Amino acid sequence: MNKTGCFITMEGPDGSGKTTQIQLLEQVLKNQGYQVWVTREPGGTSIGEQIRKIILDVENEEMDPMTEAILYAAARAQHVKQLIEPALDKGMIVLCDRFLDSSVAYQGVARGLGIDTIEGINQYATGGLVPDITFFIDMDPVIGLKRKKDQAELDRLEQETLYFHKKVYEGYLALWKRHPGRIYRVFGQDTVENIHQQIWSKLKEKIE
Amino acid sequence: MNKTGCFITMEGPDGSGKTTQIQLLEQVLKNQGYQVWVTREPGGTSIGEQIRKIILDVENEEMDPMTEAILYAAARAQHVKQLIEPALDKGMIVLCDRFLDSSVAYQGVARGLGIDTIEGINQYATGGLVPDITFFIDMDPVIGLKRKKDQAELDRLEQETLYFHKKVYEGYLALWKRHPGRIYRVFGQDTVENIHQQIWSKLKEKIE
Repeated sequence: MNKTGCFITMEGPDGSGKTTQIQLLEQVLKNQGYQVWVTREPGGTSIGEQIRKIILDVENEEMDPMTEAILYAAARAQHVKQLIEPALDKGMIVLCDRFLDSSVAYQGVARGLGIDTIEGINQYATGGLVPDITFFIDMDPVIGLKRKKDQAELDRLEQETLYFHKKVYEGYLALWKRHPGRIYRVFGQDTVENIHQQIWSKLKEKIE
Repeated sequence: MNKTGCFITMEGPDGSGKTTQIQLLEQVLKNQGYQVWVTREPGGTSIGEQIRKIILDVENEEMDPMTEAILYAAARAQHVKQLIEPALDKGMIVLCDRFLDSSVAYQGVARGLGIDTIEGINQYATGGLVPDITFFIDMDPVIGLKRKKDQAELDRLEQETLYFHKKVYEGYLALWKRHPGRIYRVFGQDTVENIHQQIWSKLKEKIE
């Protein structure tokens, strides 16, 4: 892989404020003159958005956990090949809302398929691409879900039980312990501006 | 796996007459009193049909070969869990139009992803389920494609070059040599009735 840019992912439970933090980060990076590409999973590409629709459709309640895991991997494969790798090759900073860690936390831990299974499937999807740095917004899932419910209608995964969302959170904690060099934790119940400052100062070390 | 039924797959290039042979086989099996479930890939389930639409949509020309391979695996995972395994558990005969061998021939050989890669991805999707017997209708891809073009509008894979369809055919020949115990070859340019008789007499050995 001829990777010259920087690949940054934002992770955390639903309602942890990832999207807001990505927007703030995009702004400060652009102000500093960086070329930035903002994207999200599942989705990111036209084909990925079509897959996202199947995954999150509340009508698809019969979806098997393995189907769900493999669909996320399919969307990711298209995302990596069509957008992320080309942007990194051009030296851009890629800011991605959720990536492989989400699959590990949601399907690997919360759905119980296992971390190794999810990593194995995704090895095909990512071709081995790993983020340079990942920000994990650590937010109590009870508070995160409440926030989310106040904002919009919940999708198929957001509608899962509180027990499921607690398992997702456990998954994130396990990942953070497993990859201390890559995953940087910030506390999600601080103010938006404080969280942003923590993320930005950590990221500056990485890119400057 | 507590498998008591019989899992039969029909494989071959586009236009080789798989669907016709499945209909004839279904009829003769039902006449004999067997409980038969006829299905197809990609598709078979509601979720699978949604995935099938993405895969075969001619608008999705930017689809990466790996995305295509993983999407087929996702549809297959749902198919196996929701329909094929439950039907086999009930002792039914499942007749499936295309299965894993199609992925190996199309994505593994013709798209060049490699047989091992396709088998690796699909190990997650099938949980190790392998057909009891597979009929490979051996048809020159030039003739198969011509037939197909006369019948209907071509989908994204059928629209591929003749070179691609020749590689698919090579893939099938390689598979037939690799799994001589499972894959039974019949010549596709014989009459429909003769092909049916060959398939039926071979299948009788298996199920009676």
